[in-house]
Amino acid sequence: MPMPPAFDGSKTVVAICGGVGGAKLALGLAHLLGARLTVVVNVADDFVHMGLRICPDIDTVLYTLGGRSDEARGWGRAGESWNFMAATKELGGEDWFALGDRDLALHVQRSCRLAGGETLTAVTAAVAEKFGIASKILPVTDDDLRTRVHTDAGVLDFQRYFVERRCEPEVRRIAFDGAATARLSPQVRDALASKQLGAVIICPSNPYLSIDPILAVPGLRAAMRGSGAPVVAVSPIIGGRAIKGPTAKIMQELDIAPTAATIAQHYAGLIDGLVVDSADGAEAVGLGITTCATPTLMTDLPSRIALARESLAFAARLAT
Amino acid sequence: MPMPPAFDGSKTVVAICGGVGGAKLALGLAHLLGARLTVVVNVADDFVHMGLRICPDIDTVLYTLGGRSDEARGWGRAGESWNFMAATKELGGEDWFALGDRDLALHVQRSCRLAGGETLTAVTAAVAEKFGIASKILPVTDDDLRTRVHTDAGVLDFQRYFVERRCEPEVRRIAFDGAATARLSPQVRDALASKQLGAVIICPSNPYLSIDPILAVPGLRAAMRGSGAPVVAVSPIIGGRAIKGPTAKIMQELDIAPTAATIAQHYAGLIDGLVVDSADGAEAVGLGITTCATPTLMTDLPSRIALARESLAFAARLAT
Repeated sequence: MPMPPAFDGSKTVVAICGGVGGAKLALGLAHLLGARLTVVVNVADDFVHMGLRICPDIDTVLYTLGGRSDEARGWGRAGESWNFMAATKELGGEDWFALGDRDLALHVQRSCRLAGGETLTAVTAAVAEKFGIASKILPVTDDDLRTRVHTDAGVLDFQRYFVERRCEPEVRRIAFDGAATARLSPQVRDALASKQLGAVIICPSNPYLSIDPILAVPGLRAAMRGSGAPVVAVSPIIGGRAIKGPTAKIMQELDIAPTAATIAQHYAGLIDGLVVDSADGAEAVGLGITTCATPTLMTDLPSRIALARESLAFAARLAT
Repeated sequence: MPMPPAFDGSKTVVAICGGVGGAKLALGLAHLLGARLTVVVNVADDFVHMGLRICPDIDTVLYTLGGRSDEARGWGRAGESWNFMAATKELGGEDWFALGDRDLALHVQRSCRLAGGETLTAVTAAVAEKFGIASKILPVTDDDLRTRVHTDAGVLDFQRYFVERRCEPEVRRIAFDGAATARLSPQVRDALASKQLGAVIICPSNPYLSIDPILAVPGLRAAMRGSGAPVVAVSPIIGGRAIKGPTAKIMQELDIAPTAATIAQHYAGLIDGLVVDSADGAEAVGLGITTCATPTLMTDLPSRIALARESLAFAARLAT
């Protein structure tokens, strides 16, 4: 796969990424960049369930970049079976969070290795290697960072809100417990400090639930701005609507208009450019942010790679 | 299923039980006694694997009495699948101890509940209830008790010796770490102190690996003797041979003749009667121990119930 003509083939890229939506673009970037891509992943959705440490966003990125994701279902592993869940239910265990038999291997291995003193960064790297992933996948921090959703039904842990309650409670505020003290991963800091860095891409994950907790880690924003590389966000809005249901619902509840301009405003001061969908036009969003209009709906691998190429080419133009 | 004519239908029974071999007789006893049976199970084969607490003997008894054991394979759960193991192997995890997808639910539930402060006794009772088991299944102790096998290849944890090394190293001595301080489960003490107790049956599990660690818990022998009920062991020897491979091999390595007389000697001072296989005759074994000869090979449910009936009738005769 040829690089975008404008993007220097020796440069590296850091992608800031949440779960499913972001992982699609990360896969496109990985196809183009291989080992020159570092994906910095949200950990604020992580939780301990049945004594096991589960990292939904990291797992999604690992399965997606490792060619092991279930494309039809949209989450989890391909070729999955559910006998563990059936037996858990029989024992009266919690069954609101579906854990596939294959998926479980990752949670058990990770929990065991974390208990043995390894960092989440080290465990994630080991799994990526086993999955044959050339790109680096880095948790933004090895410290505890947890999204807490303040709703009309009380304050909920993220997975309780997102999976158990299916995003039904009305969101009033989103907080990130531990953000004040979480330490930016040294590997993330290094990736952003690299002289080879050619671009930072903020993937089209939910800005409020998936990207904000990453950006909340002290030092990350400064490291992004200080890198000197252009910072480009890809808007999750298509035609004045958030294509992912929860994002649309949350934006409405937080009284935020689902427009490219809103996204630009959200990332103002941090990004140099915003990739917007062709349907949203290429009108100026102001705030010193340049826009680039292109199809952003990623329905298959070619459309993921195409958006990745376009985003990198845009970043290259911004750098000149 | 009618009770043996000689055994008082209002009496309770305590069975002392290891894994597969013992569980077969326990199942026969459970068919006859239901809620009047208490099975006291070995925990010295337990271990922590990948961070999960695994109790092979308790699990075997739960699956056997719960009608969930795989009869053809001889261990583990029926209808089992192995996708967790396949995915674990892919991740470079340990694969010497096979954990089925359904089986895993029990280990995860138990580990989580133990970590939450419940006792192994409580967790085991909860699982037995979910499995619809009327009989009580009790770990002999809630404390740590671990079989360590001294071999020509060094000192091995039990599962390392039994599963990973397939009993290949030559056994020189068997030790039970923690036996000096393990506290007899109060529920086991109560079962043996019951005025309704009609018999104590030592199942035909491996005397050295499965029954000895149970008997090593301080206070158990005294509670058995002090109960006043007849104590009957069922010999694991058939026709001068131990029918289970490891038992035969270990007896040879420990220079112990595989005879009913040897078993009688091993349990001397503790038992009143010994059920021996018809092939081993009904000759006196001395030591004040009465014998009863009957077919002891348990190939199907009727033969398990038949041996249970015979053992109970024998105990009833000893009580008069």
